[in-house]
Amino acid sequence: MVFYLVGLGLGDAKDITVKGLEIVKSADRVYLEAYTSILTVGKEALERFYGRSVILADRDTVEQGSDEILENAAQEDVVFLVVGDPFGATTHSDLVLRAKEKNIPWKVVHNASIMNAVGCCGLQLYNFGETVSIVFWTDSWRPDSFCEKINSNLKRGLHTLCLLDIKMKEQTVENMMRGRKIYEPPRFMTVSTACQQLLEVTKNNPESEFSSDTLCVGLSRVGSEDQRIAAATLRELSEYEDMGKPLHSLIVVGKVHPLEQEYLEQFFLNEKSCR
Amino acid sequence: MVFYLVGLGLGDAKDITVKGLEIVKSADRVYLEAYTSILTVGKEALERFYGRSVILADRDTVEQGSDEILENAAQEDVVFLVVGDPFGATTHSDLVLRAKEKNIPWKVVHNASIMNAVGCCGLQLYNFGETVSIVFWTDSWRPDSFCEKINSNLKRGLHTLCLLDIKMKEQTVENMMRGRKIYEPPRFMTVSTACQQLLEVTKNNPESEFSSDTLCVGLSRVGSEDQRIAAATLRELSEYEDMGKPLHSLIVVGKVHPLEQEYLEQFFLNEKSCR
Repeated sequence: MVFYLVGLGLGDAKDITVKGLEIVKSADRVYLEAYTSILTVGKEALERFYGRSVILADRDTVEQGSDEILENAAQEDVVFLVVGDPFGATTHSDLVLRAKEKNIPWKVVHNASIMNAVGCCGLQLYNFGETVSIVFWTDSWRPDSFCEKINSNLKRGLHTLCLLDIKMKEQTVENMMRGRKIYEPPRFMTVSTACQQLLEVTKNNPESEFSSDTLCVGLSRVGSEDQRIAAATLRELSEYEDMGKPLHSLIVVGKVHPLEQEYLEQFFLNEKSCR
Repeated sequence: MVFYLVGLGLGDAKDITVKGLEIVKSADRVYLEAYTSILTVGKEALERFYGRSVILADRDTVEQGSDEILENAAQEDVVFLVVGDPFGATTHSDLVLRAKEKNIPWKVVHNASIMNAVGCCGLQLYNFGETVSIVFWTDSWRPDSFCEKINSNLKRGLHTLCLLDIKMKEQTVENMMRGRKIYEPPRFMTVSTACQQLLEVTKNNPESEFSSDTLCVGLSRVGSEDQRIAAATLRELSEYEDMGKPLHSLIVVGKVHPLEQEYLEQFFLNEKSCR
């Protein structure tokens, strides 16, 4: 019948659209993608709200087992729920391509994602440059390609949205080598960790366009009742531990326009250092 | 009580979120912002779906008459409906600031906007640079600042989303000078008009990073049942008149990654020229 990709938005169960909810209620099978992002509520809360069961789909199911998801989709309506908007991650376009290969009709129900909801801090979306991802560093792996992109945005006066790492169902190297399916608890990068990594990068780079004094904005749980926004210097945010539960995002601020400034002021942690 | 900014998303009445609909149904007054964007349905369809009346707010009401919108909002729940996401236009952050001045509590309900739904063509959102606006040229006014921004994105291999001009309730110069409140019919820039203006700009600019052969993507009515996506060269799209009703958007394509390519192919108007 139809393969539906339905965006859940960013907050809780009620952030699904009316169109999306109707599709979920009448579908034969409903999957929930649970590894590229999370809502402030879990699968059980969604099931209660929908009045039906939902199947959790982890990375393995989606990337290796898409046959399971699309199985029988020619006869049944299958829904794939995605936190935010369905096209936020490459793996979802890939699912559509595999549905097309099988001649299964597909439809998308859009919703808010961090890529547009980030406007809630008052910085205008058309003043943002390329978005970057910041991943957890390890002792031996410290990728910093985001740095060149932030610099390039700052040279043009543009803000940079930094998406912060999420680790769901990660295995230790030892467990992976021994083929043991034992997973570490989920980890979500905080604003302060991201800022610490950015500080490290600037220290060793005399050509960095940003420094410990650069204005940044930390955001957590955007779109939920208890979302939090804090504007402060990079150093201040690297030491700030009150952003609360995941998900966190960070903005490195470029040239601030007057209306942006006026709006942003309500989120200043420290009037003096932010000006 | 509370001043709510509620996003309507991009398609029709059912693209509002469940949370948004509950707020609309129980509010005292509901305004619809109707000059920065449009849905595929009008005010009457929304009223039927909500089962209540909605007040149309044009630019004058919002920018000069915000007192009317916020009047009595300390005692009543007032909703301001915005097509797409509430933070898509500067004028909406301004409304929040004015609510804050009056000590009126406010809340936002996010939704999809063209800024994230544009991912539906398969180009990844994190490969986009700065977004630009393309306005209707007149005989004497031909702004082309978008050109420098597109070039700058292309130099970095990034795609550019071009938002196309909307003219709602415009007056002719004569009517404006005579103080006659007579308005022209709404006008919406098409993909082909936008491409024609881009072609004009490249002709006179030897340093342009794009040419008549640059791959572009035209999109119309994104998020609605009859959305249309067409990928072709800038010249081909400048002559292509089948995008249908508004709203239209355009992407100037940068470096295409393999998965993007595979997805985009389904929208090619002409296999040969797109490769």
